[in-house]
Amino acid sequence: MDRISVLSEIADVIDSRKGADPQTSYVAKLFSKAPDAALKKVGEEATEVVMAAKDGDKDHLIYEVADLWFHSMVVLAQAGLRPEMVVAELARREGVSGLVEKANRAEK
Amino acid sequence: MDRISVLSEIADVIDSRKGADPQTSYVAKLFSKAPDAALKKVGEEATEVVMAAKDGDKDHLIYEVADLWFHSMVVLAQAGLRPEMVVAELARREGVSGLVEKANRAEK
Amino acid sequence: MDRISVLSEIADVIDSRKGADPQTSYVAKLFSKAPDAALKKVGEEATEVVMAAKDGDKDHLIYEVADLWFHSMVVLAQAGLRPEMVVAELARREGVSGLVEKANRAEK
Amino acid sequence: MDRISVLSEIADVIDSRKGADPQTSYVAKLFSKAPDAALKKVGEEATEVVMAAKDGDKDHLIYEVADLWFHSMVVLAQAGLRPEMVVAELARREGVSGLVEKANRAEK
Repeated sequence: MDRISVLSEIADVIDSRKGADPQTSYVAKLFSKAPDAALKKVGEEATEVVMAAKDGDKDHLIYEVADLWFHSMVVLAQAGLRPEMVVAELARREGVSGLVEKANRAEK
Repeated sequence: MDRISVLSEIADVIDSRKGADPQTSYVAKLFSKAPDAALKKVGEEATEVVMAAKDGDKDHLIYEVADLWFHSMVVLAQAGLRPEMVVAELARREGVSGLVEKANRAEK
Repeated sequence: MDRISVLSEIADVIDSRKGADPQTSYVAKLFSKAPDAALKKVGEEATEVVMAAKDGDKDHLIYEVADLWFHSMVVLAQAGLRPEMVVAELARREGVSGLVEKANRAEK
Repeated sequence: MDRISVLSEIADVIDSRKGADPQTSYVAKLFSKAPDAALKKVGEEATEVVMAAKDGDKDHLIYEVADLWFHSMVVLAQAGLRPEMVVAELARREGVSGLVEKANRAEK
């Protein structure tokens, strides 16, 4: 399943909210208070990740990491950046590549 | 380019470090001090994302978001969870689907 | 000016809100959602301190540090602890003492 | 016991480290990397406060709140500000005053 397209799609949705009426969506509201509203949420959600992990609540942990990544993507969008750049940076430093892995899977 | 496989691959690498000698890798060292070492990094990296965004330093911002997502994945791994679960949660709440998007692209 | 009494007084006010109707005050509301509501605020306010410092906005920085310290005191109160204990720990590690300093001032 | 003088004394010690050789003390090292090193520590220590509170470890919580307040004071010092200003802001918003309280105690 090609789930990076999910991150790309979400980034597209986030980008489409730029300049929109703050009343129309949550992301438009964050953009209207850029950059601080989204940055504040990154700090808040990181704290919630820590609390959910300490509580040992797995469903809550997934939910809070999703919140953290989502608001990270709003912060990226505010700077004209994309999640694909973050994934490329992770691939570079970890020495892994989706293309190589796909090739390996194709061989199996 | 199928970049979700990058997140999956990185999660595989992280999982493979469980129980390893802390001297052998950075992730093994984080696991040896689980859960606090990785949680502390999540708080620290969230702060660095905020600082990089405030500085308007785009390369640094990509780097710090990568750090934040990487340590989030270590936190997930400590709980036996995977980044695919986070992406699925994001897809669910945003009403998007990589499969649907792929189909749409194929039609173009 | 004996301003530690301010911290002590504020801690007294915070302690007096324990068990109160959450509708009656902000602190009573935090206590009703203990420990997570106050902890979340500590993470949020720390992020706001970072943002205010980056903005170079001095009045805002004082305001946000006050918010951070206030919510730290609610976290202390939830654990049955007092700000005087924090100040005593700071005195211990820094090797300073209000009593000694007072004596020195008296000599001048 | 006049413990605000402790916060004032610590602020004096912090201020005295400005411009000092980074090798000579921890605070001088933070100043040499201002403002980011101290700000990063504020985010990190806030996270440690949350973890200590979740662990229910009271001694550790006092220790981490002390760390958080100490690094907050370094952030204040970097902006030319003082902890007395934070305490005055807390007194203003809470409607309490050390002077008034002292007067009341004197009457008893």
